[in-house]
Formats: sequence, C-alpha cells, structure tokens
Amino acid sequence: MLPPVFLFLLLTLLSAADASVQDFCVGDISASDTPAGYPCKDVSHVTTNDFVFKGLGKAGNTSNIIKAAVTPAFVGQFPGVNGLGISAARLDLAPGGVVPLHTHPGGSELLVVTQGTILAGFISSANGVYYTTLHKGDTMVFPQGLLHFQINAGGVTAVAIVTFSSPNPGLQITAFALFGNSLPSALVEMVTFLDDAQVKKLKKVLGGSG
Amino acid sequence: MLPPVFLFLLLTLLSAADASVQDFCVGDISASDTPAGYPCKDVSHVTTNDFVFKGLGKAGNTSNIIKAAVTPAFVGQFPGVNGLGISAARLDLAPGGVVPLHTHPGGSELLVVTQGTILAGFISSANGVYYTTLHKGDTMVFPQGLLHFQINAGGVTAVAIVTFSSPNPGLQITAFALFGNSLPSALVEMVTFLDDAQVKKLKKVLGGSG
Amino acid sequence: MLPPVFLFLLLTLLSAADASVQDFCVGDISASDTPAGYPCKDVSHVTTNDFVFKGLGKAGNTSNIIKAAVTPAFVGQFPGVNGLGISAARLDLAPGGVVPLHTHPGGSELLVVTQGTILAGFISSANGVYYTTLHKGDTMVFPQGLLHFQINAGGVTAVAIVTFSSPNPGLQITAFALFGNSLPSALVEMVTFLDDAQVKKLKKVLGGSG
Amino acid sequence: MLPPVFLFLLLTLLSAADASVQDFCVGDISASDTPAGYPCKDVSHVTTNDFVFKGLGKAGNTSNIIKAAVTPAFVGQFPGVNGLGISAARLDLAPGGVVPLHTHPGGSELLVVTQGTILAGFISSANGVYYTTLHKGDTMVFPQGLLHFQINAGGVTAVAIVTFSSPNPGLQITAFALFGNSLPSALVEMVTFLDDAQVKKLKKVLGGSG
Amino acid sequence: MLPPVFLFLLLTLLSAADASVQDFCVGDISASDTPAGYPCKDVSHVTTNDFVFKGLGKAGNTSNIIKAAVTPAFVGQFPGVNGLGISAARLDLAPGGVVPLHTHPGGSELLVVTQGTILAGFISSANGVYYTTLHKGDTMVFPQGLLHFQINAGGVTAVAIVTFSSPNPGLQITAFALFGNSLPSALVEMVTFLDDAQVKKLKKVLGGSG
Amino acid sequence: MLPPVFLFLLLTLLSAADASVQDFCVGDISASDTPAGYPCKDVSHVTTNDFVFKGLGKAGNTSNIIKAAVTPAFVGQFPGVNGLGISAARLDLAPGGVVPLHTHPGGSELLVVTQGTILAGFISSANGVYYTTLHKGDTMVFPQGLLHFQINAGGVTAVAIVTFSSPNPGLQITAFALFGNSLPSALVEMVTFLDDAQVKKLKKVLGGSG
Repeated sequence: MLPPVFLFLLLTLLSAADASVQDFCVGDISASDTPAGYPCKDVSHVTTNDFVFKGLGKAGNTSNIIKAAVTPAFVGQFPGVNGLGISAARLDLAPGGVVPLHTHPGGSELLVVTQGTILAGFISSANGVYYTTLHKGDTMVFPQGLLHFQINAGGVTAVAIVTFSSPNPGLQITAFALFGNSLPSALVEMVTFLDDAQVKKLKKVLGGSG
Repeated sequence: MLPPVFLFLLLTLLSAADASVQDFCVGDISASDTPAGYPCKDVSHVTTNDFVFKGLGKAGNTSNIIKAAVTPAFVGQFPGVNGLGISAARLDLAPGGVVPLHTHPGGSELLVVTQGTILAGFISSANGVYYTTLHKGDTMVFPQGLLHFQINAGGVTAVAIVTFSSPNPGLQITAFALFGNSLPSALVEMVTFLDDAQVKKLKKVLGGSG
Repeated sequence: MLPPVFLFLLLTLLSAADASVQDFCVGDISASDTPAGYPCKDVSHVTTNDFVFKGLGKAGNTSNIIKAAVTPAFVGQFPGVNGLGISAARLDLAPGGVVPLHTHPGGSELLVVTQGTILAGFISSANGVYYTTLHKGDTMVFPQGLLHFQINAGGVTAVAIVTFSSPNPGLQITAFALFGNSLPSALVEMVTFLDDAQVKKLKKVLGGSG
Repeated sequence: MLPPVFLFLLLTLLSAADASVQDFCVGDISASDTPAGYPCKDVSHVTTNDFVFKGLGKAGNTSNIIKAAVTPAFVGQFPGVNGLGISAARLDLAPGGVVPLHTHPGGSELLVVTQGTILAGFISSANGVYYTTLHKGDTMVFPQGLLHFQINAGGVTAVAIVTFSSPNPGLQITAFALFGNSLPSALVEMVTFLDDAQVKKLKKVLGGSG
Repeated sequence: MLPPVFLFLLLTLLSAADASVQDFCVGDISASDTPAGYPCKDVSHVTTNDFVFKGLGKAGNTSNIIKAAVTPAFVGQFPGVNGLGISAARLDLAPGGVVPLHTHPGGSELLVVTQGTILAGFISSANGVYYTTLHKGDTMVFPQGLLHFQINAGGVTAVAIVTFSSPNPGLQITAFALFGNSLPSALVEMVTFLDDAQVKKLKKVLGGSG
Repeated sequence: MLPPVFLFLLLTLLSAADASVQDFCVGDISASDTPAGYPCKDVSHVTTNDFVFKGLGKAGNTSNIIKAAVTPAFVGQFPGVNGLGISAARLDLAPGGVVPLHTHPGGSELLVVTQGTILAGFISSANGVYYTTLHKGDTMVFPQGLLHFQINAGGVTAVAIVTFSSPNPGLQITAFALFGNSLPSALVEMVTFLDDAQVKKLKKVLGGSG
C-alpha cells in the first residue's frame, strides 16, 4: 500500500497545476456580459445547484391566446451553462397552441417531443419548406437563424424539450418584431408587402405604435 | 554580401516548412461543401484572379418591382473568400427601391453607403427598433440573424457596399419565406396571425402555392 | 396589388444570392469526415426526414448487467445535426441501473429527466464533487470533458433526454477504457494504483486481454 | 381579431425568454478588453447611433509623404462591431500614394475600390506573389496575416472601402516595425540582411532609435 | 531621402489605426475569468517579462511516491498566453516515475521528450489503445479529452516539454477524481465496478472521505 | 463478480454510441485540404505511429549562411495533429545563427530553449518592441501574426522546441517575401522605402527576379 505521505505530495503536484483551472465558468449574471459570455463566478462559491435547473418540470401557463408557453433555461435563468455552448427550454402547447414563426439568431435548436403531437417545420434561405408531424419521442433539428414554428397537432396538450447550441440563443418572433413595437406602419408595409389595414390591425392587437 | 549558396540553402530551409502551408484555401466549388467551407483548390492552380471579383463595379438591374438589386460576392461567386470569414455584395436601390425585411442566418452585415441616401434598420430579439437615415459614407452594422431592411430614402439611385462576417452568410427574405413557396396558407396564418385574404393575396403575387 | 412579374424578378434577385447558400449541411456519412464534420449531402437530395430522428421515442433495452441503455442521435445516426453544434441521446435506467463513470471528450452535456429519479454528478479538475438527485423535469449540465455518472435513484425505470454541444461528443467509459481492451494489466496498475487482483478480475469481466 | 389581452400574455411569454438575450454586445471601450472583445454596454443605454459610424464619408488627409490615409472603423472607433466579427476602414490614396507593406495579424481583408485605380497585392507563405491592378468596383481579398500593399495606379486620387473579418484586425506596417522604434540597428540588420547604412538611414527617417 | 516630417505624419496615420489594437491580451489574473480567458492587462503596463516564463528550466521535485513532477506554465502561472490558444508544462519522471492516467478536458497535448525514455499512450472513445516508447526528441500528440499516461521507461530521469492547445487545458487525474475526495465509496463502486475493499484502500491512501 | 454476459451487453451499448465517434482525425494528406484541415484517415487504418513524430530528435543542418535550421512537425509532416490545434518544430541555431524576421499567419508560437542561449523578440502592431535573452529552460510566447526573430546569443549551438496553436501555422520570412520572388524591385522599393541598390543587392542574393 502507498504510504500516507502520498496524499500530501500528490496534493502538491496538483495544487500547482490546478491554479486557475477553468473546467467551467458559472456566469456571474450581475456583471457585464462579454461576446463570449458572462464573467465567471468565483469557483469557491460554486455549488451543485449552479449546474441544476428545476424549472423545466413545471407546465408553463398556456391560458393565453396562442395557448403556448416557453420556459427558458438560458444563461439568464441557468448560469451554469455560461460558456458551455448549450441551453434548454420547455415548450407547452395546449390544444390549438402555436409557437409563432420565429428565429434564434444565436444557435441551432433540437426539439424532442415528450408528450402529444407537434407539427413543426422550418424554411431555408433557398426557400425550401421542411415540415412534418412529430410524435412522442421524435426529434427535429432547426438550423441556426432560420424561420421555424411549432403547432399542436393533436387534441391534447403537447410538451417538448428544446435545446440550443448556445447558452443564449435569442428568440425573435416575426409577428412581434413586425407589429409589436414602434416601427412605423408605412415602413412595415414597404418591407413586407402587407396591406395597410392588415398591418394596422395587427399593430393594435400586438401593441405596436406608429 | 551573402554568397549565392544562400539561396539554395534558404530554399531548403523553407521547402520543409512550406509543405502543406495553408495561408488560404480557394474553394473548389465543384466539390462537396463541408461545415467549414469548400475543399481547397490545388495551390498550384491558384492565380491572382482567384482573389479578385469584378462584379461589384456594375450596377445591378433595378427594373423590377422592388426597384432593387443585390449582386453577391459570396463564396459561390468568389471562391477566394472560402475559409476567410468574409464576403461582400453590392446593393442598388433605384428611387422607391426596397430590400424587404430579411435576415442573414450565418453572419453579421456591415453596410457602407457609396451613393445616395438609405433608410436602414434592424429589430432586436428584445423587440428594440434601431433605424436611421444613412448618407454617402455612413456605415451601419446589422448583428447576425436579426431582421433588417434597407429603403432608398432619396430621389436618386442609392448604392451600398455590404460585407459579411462569413463567406456564405445566407439571405432569408421574410415575405418570400412566407408567401413564395408551398407552405399551406392555413399554416402561414396560424404562425403569423395574418388574415387569410392577405396571405392568399401575397401567395398569388409571390408565387406561393397551397 | 403587385403585378405577377414580381415573382420572376424576385426569383432572379434571389437566384444569384442563393447560389451555394449553406443554411445547413446534412452530413454525407459515407464520405470521409473532416475536423469540422462530414461533407454536405447535395441539397437537392435533402428532405425533411434528414432533420428528423425517430429513435428516441423507443425505450432502450436495459436487460443487461448495468440495467442501462443509451440510444444516441449523434451525427452517425442523425446526419441532419452535422455542423450544427448539437446532438442528443436517450438514457434508460431500469431500477438499479447505472451509467458508469465516463466523459464526453468533445462536448458539454445537458440532461433533462423525463421519468423517474436519477442521482447524477461530476468531478472537476480541481477535484470538486458536484452531485445531486434529479427528479422529473430537473435539468443538469455536465461541463465538457469532466468525469460524470448517472444512477437510477428510485424504484422505477428512469428516462432522460440528454443533449450535447457537439454533433459528435464521443463517449469514453472509464472502466471500459481501463479493463476492456489490450492495455497490459501491469500498465493499468501503474497508472491507476489499483491492485493486480482487482485489475485482472475486471479485465476478465470486461473482456480485456493482457 | 385577437383580443387585446394577447399583448399582455405574449409580453409575458417573451419577457422570460428575453432576459439576458445577447443579440449584440456594443463594446464598453472604457472597460478592460478580453480575448473575445469588450464587455457589453448595458442594452438600456444602447441607441441606433451605436450601430452607425459616420467617419468613412470624409476623405482622409493625404498631405503626407506616403500620400495616403487610413480611416479606421475598428471597435475602438465603432463600438457597435464588438463581438460581431467584422469592421471597416476607408483608404485614400492621392496620386503617388502608397500603403506600405503591412499585415493584419487578426483578420482577413476585403477591399472594394470606389474611386480611381489601385495596384494591390499580397505574398503567400510559400512566397507566391499575387498582385494586380484594380479599377472602380473591383474587389480583392487578402488572407489573414499575409504581407500586402496598395498603391495608387492612376493619375487621380483613389479611394477604397476595406473591411475585415475581425472587429480589431490590427495593422503592422513592416517598415515602421523595422525602423520606427528602439530595435537596435545591429539587430535589425541581422534579421533582415539589410546593410547598416540602409537601416540607419531609414531609422532616421522613421524616427527609430538605436 | 524622405524628409523628417514623414515621422510625424506616419505616426498620425498609425495613431488612429492603433487605438485599441489587440495583438495580445496579457491576462489580468486578479480579475474574474471569462469563458474566453482573463481580461487584458493595460498594454501600457505590459513588458517583455509578461511573455517570458522561466520556471520550466528547473527540475521538478520528484521525491514523492509517483516519482514525478509537473511544472505548469498555464495562464495562471504565465499570463502572457491568455487568449493565445497555447500553454506549456515541464514533466520530470525519476526512474520508476509515473504520471497516472488523466485527461485534459480543455485541450490537446503535444509531448516532446528532452531526456530519457518515456512509455506514453492514450485510449480512444472507441476503446482503441495507442501506446509506445518514446526516446529523446520523439514527439507524441494526445487528442483532447482522452485518457492518457506517461511512465519512465528507462533507468534515468526522463524529462519532457509538453504543450497544450489551450492556455488553460485542465488536468483531471482519474485516481484522484475517484479516491481523493468526498465521493461516497458506494457510489464510486457503482460507477466503476471496483470492489469495496479496493475503493476504501485507495480512498485511505489518496485522502478521500466517505 | 459480474457475469461474462456483461461484456457482450456493454459492447452493444457502446457500439451504437461509438459509431462515427471522432476523437481524432488523422489527416489524409493525399486528399484536398479544407479550411478546417484535411479529411480524416479511416480509423481502422490509424496506428500509434500516426500520433508519433520522430524527426525532432535529430539536429537540423545548420551548415548554411544563416547557420540555422527549422525542422517542422506541422500537419504535412505529422498528420496526427490534424484538427487538434497544435503542432511543433525544432530550431537549431549554430553560433552566429539567425532565424530572420518572420511571422506565422495562422498561429501563436511558444518557444522553449533546450540548449544554449537565444536572443528572441517580437514587435507589436502598436510598434512596441519586446525582446530578451533566453537561457536553457526559458519559455517565450509570440502572439499570432506578429513579426519576430530568434538569434543565437551564445558561443555554442542553441536548440529550441517551438510549438504552435495551429496544425499548420505557416511561416513568412520577411526578407524572402521581399527579395526572393518575382515582385518587381520598383514595387518593393515603394512599399518598403528601401533604396534601389539595397533591393537589387538582396534580390540577387535571395534569388529574386524583377
């Protein structure tokens, strides 16, 4: 058997090598972000809880018009993913529920259906249309930055786990970007070919001004 | 003065080091692409012309409905940028011309106005609206993957040089993605909140089916 | 309303820009891999099915000694993730089931429990121990390259969806790397401090020679 | 029509997802840089002006010996490009003007001639020479880190827009690196094979000491 | 000869371009790390010494049980490598010395033997075994994240220079991760298949509790 | 003890996961390079020898004018480093030996002196000069793309191991780029400020034409 002195010596060996080792970088989200993510929380304050997120177990509230809820576990909610190139969200779609057309500017998405049936698809730059009906256990990948959507395709609530190739993939819902802000109606019409009445109607619904 | 033998010896020194040196990788666009770009053309066949693109000097044809033309110098047209993280395009906007709302899934865009006046802007994930009028020499940057547009804001043709942080940034025009393909109208309506009549009208204009 | 000529003209506008656009790169896994992934399948042969994987809906066979099964949806099984920085797998753990200590050399892992209870943890370079019991819906992230494990911590089969920040994260099970190959016993003992009897016993069990 | 309650609910949906979304990271250049760029300015203080740079519209002052001027829009002058992998500069070359041999250690360069005629070229690691005369609208790409130059090749002032695959590409002018600092003459001679008189002459001109 | 005015003008030309140039980013290791490395030390305080590390010239103390010493020059000891994608260490192996099985989660390793003889090897994810005896001047590369080891294979002290493709590659010694911390013995046994007696014996030797 | 059936079952578990695992990608240097490196050699043909390079143990031939030799172990000579972000070379400097001013466009360099004394330094974009005398065991890092040099500073042959943050860093020796090719003398003079006589003298020595 190795003598106890081993412990002390191996610790010495390691102590030099381990100085500043960065296996992970739990985000200090109170500090300023950088292009590569948040500064790291001091490792002496890191605990197991930093690597665990409990919010995806609870159904999102779908009592809304789109009958859908997205519960994100991005770096803002789950600082343990900072710098690790991955994050997650839970998607709840009540019957009739829709996640409207949107993009994630910062990452690709991988969706796994865990309950129900979902009609999902994306559109490529070359204007190709790729959509299908996904059942429990089916997985679909949506390449970075492309327009995509998810719709409940069954009579019961559908649930999916979605993950992203970025701790902070972003979410830009097209309808909200067009109609839910101060972009003037005339400008929206010019860049979308939509009719004035249509734009003004949706601006009213989605809270846009101008 | 150094004796002539130097040449031979230095060449020998270099010949070992230079084997397989990859300063550049002019794309062999006849071969299959990879996630990092095209395989490299044999360096012995590379000439200065591979690094030069002459198409941006000629005005695009704006005799169309949007009164706009985009002339790309992406890797498909300009194989010398393969693997170099940059590409370009020329934008012509006749009076009244518009580049409709679009994204580049694969890169950020930097626009420099070289003639005329352009109203340009983008919308952030947080639904912030950033737009302004750009004059000759003004530069604007559009972060990767975000919806943006450009509109001629003067009485004469406007021209801009746009460059991208990718040899192949992609281009997804929202109206075309919505109305210019086989995505069924009912589906488009569900994911955009647009009215049926509006969708069908634009599908007819933009050539969509379904 | 815009005249039909628009279609032709916009198609022309797009046709130039779309040449060689690489929104995605479905892997041609019959070709040689590269450090950035497989060459792209010709886009004209790409269908929706390339972006869908149906294997995660079916329980893995846990009728084995470790009472566990891993069903991967890495690029080899799911070529649509090629170049997209993400992949997935399904983990089934029957009661008593264990995924032995292992690493993924090429990516971080994010685990979401979809059924049952799992004791999961990892060990840092600084020899910190981070483990906890995860219930349905709980998520844990395991930073790239660090030793980690998952154990069924309840009386019923547990299931998890795991995703990775790489299309091809790799999987190195420590016990198998030590005892399941031709690495000579004497060498294993030197580099692990394990006793000769222990090494030889496990080599026999795990099929190692030498 | 969707009831107004929609707005509140969609805002709720978005508010969770949008927390910490990093579409862009306008550089706070008063803070310390990092290897990935500057920390981000608080998004609530970001305005359209952060994404606009007006300095490239004005001719640089070429009333100097090299009859050339470079007006940079790098991250230091244009904080909006921070983290976006792109930046720009304007190049003015009066008749007889020269941008001396130089490299950009941190990025590739793409040049578009907007006025006049420019003789431009680069030298590869394998000592290949690639140079040509560029006219208005011609574009040339200079791969990262390689020696290159630009010379006015016409009788009138030439202007070019140059962009880079980095927000901070750097600029190392060979003559200035050799003769414009405190590197001792003897040392310069040893590493360049230049004659002592030549080195001392240029050190005097370019302000070098030693 | 160029007139002295040249100096002033060229300095002006450069002063604009050089603002914020980031050729290097010597790490301020007193500040919080980020996923891309430490914030940069102010360039006005950077000296040649920041780019020089003198610790690899001195033999490590191998008067320990494993008769081995690792002297790291990672970013924590050598802040000049911050952001540069490289670091180094010195390895001393007295006769009988062993660097136990370990991984570097964050980078590949390249080893050059500078004295003596070393038996070195690694194990792949596919459980392939790659090992050989290295003599003075021989070089071996160990791909990122894979288990590997080094053993003195001669009668005299062996020395190697090892470098890494990361300023902070990490070091996880398997035996220490298993037996040198608070991971409960029962848990270790489950995830490794080791016998209880073996685990407890090594926990005692390596200082583990539980 | 675990029954032998374990082996078969664990192998089954692994066989799925291991399909297409890419721990490493030994370069098939007979195939076309890509921007990310060479296609991978079939893993079934990979042997330990692919990860070992024996050429750095032998002194380079310094019987030349610069009394220096560089022996590279880049991907062209050492295909095992393909895709791993690291490579190496041996530097021999006889008394009076010089590695002339040069850059590596594709990577940072880390030098470790293993014999003798070397005067080494680099020049920054901001024209800062960083040089010092290195003794046996001293290490210096040269940031990517910056001009640097090494000179024997003692009376005996000096040797160094240099490694790079790229499998293919490139090597551009300034004097050779200026005087050793077909770049016309007049052009060299314009972009360097050197005198005609100096340029023509060195063109003759270094084999340049024009």
